[in-house]
Amino acid sequence: MTIIRKQTGAILSALVEYNGVVYLAGVTADDKTASVKAQTENILAKIDERLALAGTDKTKLLTATVYVSDISLKTEMNEAWTAWLDPASVPTRACVAVGLDGGADVEIVVSAAK
Amino acid sequence: MTIIRKQTGAILSALVEYNGVVYLAGVTADDKTASVKAQTENILAKIDERLALAGTDKTKLLTATVYVSDISLKTEMNEAWTAWLDPASVPTRACVAVGLDGGADVEIVVSAAK
Amino acid sequence: MTIIRKQTGAILSALVEYNGVVYLAGVTADDKTASVKAQTENILAKIDERLALAGTDKTKLLTATVYVSDISLKTEMNEAWTAWLDPASVPTRACVAVGLDGGADVEIVVSAAK
Repeated sequence: MTIIRKQTGAILSALVEYNGVVYLAGVTADDKTASVKAQTENILAKIDERLALAGTDKTKLLTATVYVSDISLKTEMNEAWTAWLDPASVPTRACVAVGLDGGADVEIVVSAAK
Repeated sequence: MTIIRKQTGAILSALVEYNGVVYLAGVTADDKTASVKAQTENILAKIDERLALAGTDKTKLLTATVYVSDISLKTEMNEAWTAWLDPASVPTRACVAVGLDGGADVEIVVSAAK
Repeated sequence: MTIIRKQTGAILSALVEYNGVVYLAGVTADDKTASVKAQTENILAKIDERLALAGTDKTKLLTATVYVSDISLKTEMNEAWTAWLDPASVPTRACVAVGLDGGADVEIVVSAAK
């Protein structure tokens, strides 16, 4: 079975597809000084673009891992998250606080069916 | 191929099934003031329930990610973990310390075959 | 469909294979006092061995999660990471800082196609 990779750099591919599942690399916001809500909205827009690149979309989300730089940011992140989700297609999720690179407050990893 | 979602809320589905794999959302204990061992036992009982909802069980575990609020809690968490596991059906696992919501000391994410 | 488990202990299996996907448990270095680059090289050598055990290799990597004990270590870890990767077979990746056990500075989880 073929492995499809897209937006491949030296460190990661933004997207890998195999056996009907699309895996996305962790996505952070372009502007890491923006509000947590704005960072999350930017991340989710980028996820939409990458899912589209793979020929799928957010209605086929399977799993999500949301990393925040402080757990107190979860509520504000969730505002953008719930506004973005298709209510009929909600994935599994874990949200935990970790150290993120480049001053990011949010990083999101998702997988989706094709 | 169909995506099956169960216990779906605004933020996450507790369970998503696709292509023979059951993904569970992160599970924390109901009583986050309980001991680490008691929290873990409660989490694992909830995981049993959710796997049953999907028509599978812990003998088909594939992967686990265990988040603890401090890495020093790993030993006590492991007491409940090893007591719960079927010795013939041990999944892969990573255990790392992160910031957890609501004062939780343990959060566990698993996937299982159907 | 069969689940294949290898190097199974009381707490985790180092490798679980199901439905054409090989999942590896989190791998840390044998010598956790070594430099971040040396720890990463050791981890990646162990990942090579485990992928070989499953009959696959790094050209079939799907996803990676890299845990570091401090996000400032990411640059040094990446030196070993990019030297090891097959440029035509780069997986998705997220790299976050967490608390690791036993003084480890790096822990890596990967999945690969078979």
